[in-house]
Amino acid sequence: MSKVRSRIRNGVDSEQLFATLNIMKMEPDLAGFRFRALNRWIHGAHSRTTIREFYGAGEEDRSRPESFVLDSGEPTVLLGHDTGASPAEHLLHALAACLTTSVVYLAAARGVHLQEMESRLEADIDMRGALGLSENVPNGFRRIHLALTVKGEAPDVELRALVDRARERSVVYDMLSKAVPVVVEVSTE
Amino acid sequence: MSKVRSRIRNGVDSEQLFATLNIMKMEPDLAGFRFRALNRWIHGAHSRTTIREFYGAGEEDRSRPESFVLDSGEPTVLLGHDTGASPAEHLLHALAACLTTSVVYLAAARGVHLQEMESRLEADIDMRGALGLSENVPNGFRRIHLALTVKGEAPDVELRALVDRARERSVVYDMLSKAVPVVVEVSTE
Repeated sequence: MSKVRSRIRNGVDSEQLFATLNIMKMEPDLAGFRFRALNRWIHGAHSRTTIREFYGAGEEDRSRPESFVLDSGEPTVLLGHDTGASPAEHLLHALAACLTTSVVYLAAARGVHLQEMESRLEADIDMRGALGLSENVPNGFRRIHLALTVKGEAPDVELRALVDRARERSVVYDMLSKAVPVVVEVSTE
Repeated sequence: MSKVRSRIRNGVDSEQLFATLNIMKMEPDLAGFRFRALNRWIHGAHSRTTIREFYGAGEEDRSRPESFVLDSGEPTVLLGHDTGASPAEHLLHALAACLTTSVVYLAAARGVHLQEMESRLEADIDMRGALGLSENVPNGFRRIHLALTVKGEAPDVELRALVDRARERSVVYDMLSKAVPVVVEVSTE
């Protein structure tokens, strides 16, 4: 019991973590993942995404007991009915969750016990871009500001180093700060 | 009743839409929005974001009746416990929902009645990047493929034009395909 407990750091099984890293190092093909999502328009600004199966570690992964269901919407002032957070707000969640997970996994690998972590995000946008009222205004956020507070059993400098390394490794941070190719294929049947 | 009904196109109040566009054109300051999110780490790959108030149209908007709560996680093979879709999957949802909303609003503005829309997304990633096993592999998706099917009471060419215009205007598509500045501020207190 105590052996099992000591393997778990910050809720991450460090033995499984190192085993995963080793196997992907030895067999790079196992590091290839394909994620999927299906979004259906419901009404107005309301659309719903279901997410479940994916390909990874060399096989179709059907281990998730059920689909995740995510609803989107817009607030009243943006012509919606608050059927969910807006797509841009979901993006903020994706960014914060990804950075946080990266810090937690890195800390587990380095043997740092974390106590708390939270991120407050603010993002400014001029809606004239997205609403087609100006060609000179970007459609997206002007910038995203993320204030991350982390507490753990390590010196300040080590905690900051964890966050710095997490930024270098975060999947979502990487895509937002460097762009990612998006291919859109349209069918009208 | 029939007048009200005819104002509503695809679930969007077209009169309110044109009024919103007009007012933001006349008073550009009203187009400035600030969205916020608060993410808290829970355990392992599980973190939770709450989203509610924002600034927009010249004031703090407190009209949402409750907070939206979004949970993240990772699948077992990536050391999580499926406490939610992964951050990268949330990003796919944000992208699809944003493109869909953009098509719906544009169609409302152009008087096109839509019947159905769905998007299937697939995104490939080599996890060696995010796991720090290779410096030559990008951390994010190699690319995102989005297959969008739309049906509506308009010729094929008009429906395709709506999607093309939505891509030019989508907030999330814009940020993913062009990058966005992300400022991270760290505190260890």
